[in-house]
Amino acid sequence: MNLIEQLNEFDTAEISDALDACDLEGALLGIKPISCGKKLIGPAFTVKYTAYETKPAEFKNAGNYIDDVPPHAVIVIDNHGREDCTTWGDILTQVALMREIAGTVVFGAVRDVNFIRYSAYPLFASHIYMRSGKNRVYKSGQQCELVINGIKIKPNDILFGDDNGVLVIPKEHLQEVINKASNIKKTEQAIIDSVKNGSSLETARKIHRYDQPWLMSKG
Amino acid sequence: MNLIEQLNEFDTAEISDALDACDLEGALLGIKPISCGKKLIGPAFTVKYTAYETKPAEFKNAGNYIDDVPPHAVIVIDNHGREDCTTWGDILTQVALMREIAGTVVFGAVRDVNFIRYSAYPLFASHIYMRSGKNRVYKSGQQCELVINGIKIKPNDILFGDDNGVLVIPKEHLQEVINKASNIKKTEQAIIDSVKNGSSLETARKIHRYDQPWLMSKG
Amino acid sequence: MNLIEQLNEFDTAEISDALDACDLEGALLGIKPISCGKKLIGPAFTVKYTAYETKPAEFKNAGNYIDDVPPHAVIVIDNHGREDCTTWGDILTQVALMREIAGTVVFGAVRDVNFIRYSAYPLFASHIYMRSGKNRVYKSGQQCELVINGIKIKPNDILFGDDNGVLVIPKEHLQEVINKASNIKKTEQAIIDSVKNGSSLETARKIHRYDQPWLMSKG
Repeated sequence: MNLIEQLNEFDTAEISDALDACDLEGALLGIKPISCGKKLIGPAFTVKYTAYETKPAEFKNAGNYIDDVPPHAVIVIDNHGREDCTTWGDILTQVALMREIAGTVVFGAVRDVNFIRYSAYPLFASHIYMRSGKNRVYKSGQQCELVINGIKIKPNDILFGDDNGVLVIPKEHLQEVINKASNIKKTEQAIIDSVKNGSSLETARKIHRYDQPWLMSKG
Repeated sequence: MNLIEQLNEFDTAEISDALDACDLEGALLGIKPISCGKKLIGPAFTVKYTAYETKPAEFKNAGNYIDDVPPHAVIVIDNHGREDCTTWGDILTQVALMREIAGTVVFGAVRDVNFIRYSAYPLFASHIYMRSGKNRVYKSGQQCELVINGIKIKPNDILFGDDNGVLVIPKEHLQEVINKASNIKKTEQAIIDSVKNGSSLETARKIHRYDQPWLMSKG
Repeated sequence: MNLIEQLNEFDTAEISDALDACDLEGALLGIKPISCGKKLIGPAFTVKYTAYETKPAEFKNAGNYIDDVPPHAVIVIDNHGREDCTTWGDILTQVALMREIAGTVVFGAVRDVNFIRYSAYPLFASHIYMRSGKNRVYKSGQQCELVINGIKIKPNDILFGDDNGVLVIPKEHLQEVINKASNIKKTEQAIIDSVKNGSSLETARKIHRYDQPWLMSKG
């Protein structure tokens, strides 16, 4: 099982605690699931948008990049958290589905949420709105490093999301994060089992070392 | 088919792009669907609320206007985006349903969302809360011009909403907006068909003039 | 029927109007249902968190208190509305379910919402996120008075929530609030019945004294 497949065993709470154990910050504040109940896993294909300083004199086409995105990648779009214009909608979703792209994360607004929910495409974004980004923002970079709310995202870093939100795992730390998450999952199960067998939560947490749940010292 | 019926063929993304093509702003920022999956279409009946500067000395009744609203109108309430008191709830919803009012848009908070969702009444608002506006705000106008987040709404302008949010179409531009939306819809379908037939998205957008999708030059 | 059981007849709109009638403020701004369609009723067990000023030198365990919470109580956690770290998740939910705790209200973020929704545990919070509060905040008090957005919550005050949000009823006013809510409910039903029988809403509100719906003068 490759690392991406192994990630599928976990949820964002476990991966976030594993990032904490590695002293890494990876949580993307304010990015929420648009379709509920979907898991997002895959390497980042990054896209950056920048606002036009003045309205362009002639009509612009939308930014093109999706033809370059490999299957199973996660598109990560930085539109600076803007609530008032969108950079993702139904045409891009249909193309993404045809190309087997794993999902999309938008720091900004998205539209066509009815179709997207119906199609079960994993989409996470800051806002829902219907006003197009066309002639308001332009694609200013792709496969460049992004910084979203203070968190760095490099191309091929791993995006990981569920109904709690979205995390980024630096690619070079993926193995370590999975190892820690695996122990955290076992520790939490051991705590629950202890409580079910009559222990207080306080005692169960102490015995199973919930202070450092990746230790598995008494697992 | 009259213009209101023709509108029913579209969604807010198409209508918003048509407004862009007409160089009109009509999107109402921060107003969200309360019941999901409902479409809202109809001419505005506007209502304005103003906060009491000091708490009134005696108890006040709620503002009355709903007996004046014609069937198929959309009630648009401006309570200045206030999160902390409501101007819409179950009694008004029940009366609106009896009078075949098409729906309600509140720039502010609403309550009784359980009943409203169950009754499938199209309601869009900024917030959900339970604290009444009674003795906190009073009806200061009806069938007057509103300005919500910079967007002007005149009585009988057309409100149009779905799960992406709510737009207002100035009545005098309705025919033009529908014509443009119709072409936009065909252009987008042509782009999707091209991609399904093997085109890249970039090429499909170029051929079908996605920069000005209302042209239909190659439709 | 004891007072808590009587409360079950009402919704937050009715109870909020009864608080208004008693000139009491009890609505908790910005706290929303995490699982929809759940009612929350019970006496408060309060917990307070405080941020570490500097990151602790060694790993900390989570704050313990849940072993002290009696059945049917509502846990109320004040984490100062923080969006960026959680103080509630699946282990606490599982323990709460085993101990028949009535629900939890968090002024702050929660995680593991998938499990919590599936388990139908009544949870209300300001935000959803996945980053743990461990080593970021510590339990600084329990069964102490809280002040959330200006509203005082004392241990054993009654928490009352539904899809419109959450209220707190001061324990010493519970009987008075229930009496007023009961009359409000009857007045509102009388208004609806009048409208169904052909009255205008304005007339129905005047006859049934909607200005002071707890009077029941014409009930």
